[in-house]
Amino acid sequence: MKKIINKTEDIVSEMIAGLVKTNPKLVKQIEGTTAVVRNDVKFSQTKQVGVVSGGGSGHEPLHAGYVGDGMLSAAVAGEVFTSPTPDQIYEAIKAVDQGLGVLLIVKNYSGDVMNFDMAKEMAEADDIKIETIVVDDDISVENSEFTQGKRGVAGTVLVEKIVGAAARSGMNLADLAALGQKVIDNTKTIGIALQAATVPAVGHPSFELKDDEVEYGIGIHNERGYSVEKIKPSKELAHQLIEKIIQEFSDQTGKFVVLVNGMGGTPLMEQYIFANDVLNELADKKIQVAFSKVGNKVTSLDMQGVSLTIMKAEDSWIDMLEEPVNTIGW
Amino acid sequence: MKKIINKTEDIVSEMIAGLVKTNPKLVKQIEGTTAVVRNDVKFSQTKQVGVVSGGGSGHEPLHAGYVGDGMLSAAVAGEVFTSPTPDQIYEAIKAVDQGLGVLLIVKNYSGDVMNFDMAKEMAEADDIKIETIVVDDDISVENSEFTQGKRGVAGTVLVEKIVGAAARSGMNLADLAALGQKVIDNTKTIGIALQAATVPAVGHPSFELKDDEVEYGIGIHNERGYSVEKIKPSKELAHQLIEKIIQEFSDQTGKFVVLVNGMGGTPLMEQYIFANDVLNELADKKIQVAFSKVGNKVTSLDMQGVSLTIMKAEDSWIDMLEEPVNTIGW
Repeated sequence: MKKIINKTEDIVSEMIAGLVKTNPKLVKQIEGTTAVVRNDVKFSQTKQVGVVSGGGSGHEPLHAGYVGDGMLSAAVAGEVFTSPTPDQIYEAIKAVDQGLGVLLIVKNYSGDVMNFDMAKEMAEADDIKIETIVVDDDISVENSEFTQGKRGVAGTVLVEKIVGAAARSGMNLADLAALGQKVIDNTKTIGIALQAATVPAVGHPSFELKDDEVEYGIGIHNERGYSVEKIKPSKELAHQLIEKIIQEFSDQTGKFVVLVNGMGGTPLMEQYIFANDVLNELADKKIQVAFSKVGNKVTSLDMQGVSLTIMKAEDSWIDMLEEPVNTIGW
Repeated sequence: MKKIINKTEDIVSEMIAGLVKTNPKLVKQIEGTTAVVRNDVKFSQTKQVGVVSGGGSGHEPLHAGYVGDGMLSAAVAGEVFTSPTPDQIYEAIKAVDQGLGVLLIVKNYSGDVMNFDMAKEMAEADDIKIETIVVDDDISVENSEFTQGKRGVAGTVLVEKIVGAAARSGMNLADLAALGQKVIDNTKTIGIALQAATVPAVGHPSFELKDDEVEYGIGIHNERGYSVEKIKPSKELAHQLIEKIIQEFSDQTGKFVVLVNGMGGTPLMEQYIFANDVLNELADKKIQVAFSKVGNKVTSLDMQGVSLTIMKAEDSWIDMLEEPVNTIGW
């Protein structure tokens, strides 16, 4: 394994230090934690419901890269592929609550769900109002190594963007939670890997794929998917994923959103080629794409591959996705 | 080789199609070319000097990802690692000239310099005023496989940002060219690779490094560097590059800019760890960093590695780097 790191036990703290040092006007670190909170001028001047997310590290720019005006108020980083601790989540909640309550956006992994729930109880004991939404957009498998139900993957960034825009516009906590849940219910993702990620503490890819193989339905922590097949041209990969995702939507009229997400080790060039094939096929199917995004948004260390997210969107969600934000990663 | 592509000969046209389809409000394709031009509302309403860049593909988001208000007016994409043709560059020039002339930003490769020069002659025959600046920020080697003199690498994105901001503010063509040249003269870069890039038409990495080796001074087209050594902790890699770059600046007072650039296959996590080490060492040396940036900005397909760019900056350049822009990749 070759990686640009120092000691494996310092990876997360040094990463967060680097992120904060290179973006001092945007974010600051909450003392004694690996959580970051908004540090822009507007943050202290405008009251809104706080929006906090977090999870294991290794998915950057998720979540710290989405902290900023119009998106997250704070993000909590756990160790690599490991849930953040309840006390750190609790500190982030306290740092962003302005009396209007805090919405927690949690990806559906057992550890995350448990730790965010404990932090919620700690905050509620302080009379901070908390609502939680759990993202489970990955339709490739039911249950998984670290999950009851479906996994939360790249669709999370779309949830964070829409909820963040709504929170900035003044929406109250209960309505935000309801909006977030509705977005989650309409967001569906499948990922494919050409090569698994190398977790630094492990030192080699967590599973092996042959030189001509691609795995369908992988998770963002090297969870295995639903099949291994020979790699095909991008057009055919796009076709296979679209066929599987689109049957999740009983009504294919109205507006849709597409996110082509790079897993970390796949160049932007290939992501755009894949996005071109996705949009061509959706156009052939008369499915209207009103907003789309391409890039390394929710990664899995150096995994090679992409994921495809399709969301059935209300008009107001498109507006919220298009609103400018001030973040590192959107 | 596993890549998410269709036919190798269609890579660039399909990539540009994907980029344009997913960003229709921002950019449009110039018919019959793989060049893109600003498509935002402001573009047709405000007169400014046009700023055009381009080069071989495989370095995304450079250059098309930097087209937008406050940065490039247009970008021309050649085939993978291959200069764009003069006729395509000429079409881009014509698409952006508003009567105030056009500045060409060229990376210092023989093919690029020649083809941009031919396009300049074609445009001048149409009475379009043209100035050219040539970026040669890579201090690792003199001359190279495709270069007379030094190579143009990641510092290009800083030049494009500063010149783009100045052009938006109304600076005239001659002053823009002088500003750009001054920025180039104060911008120094070295890159390291843990693994070479795989060019799709070749099918394997262009050179081999052992499991514990890193190569110093590589270019963005798999050009070899100045030494191969055992890989070291990030702190020591940062130290070695800083020592070599900083001696280029006789005066180490004043403000500096740092860009930690990912080469395409290295996760953001490692880039932030490396950035942390760079900023710590510069702070120890009492070198004042007034602006910094981290990310996959000027890539080399799936190359694993990073580059470090340090610029000695005037106050006004810092302001221009901080100005908001509307682009895919900044």
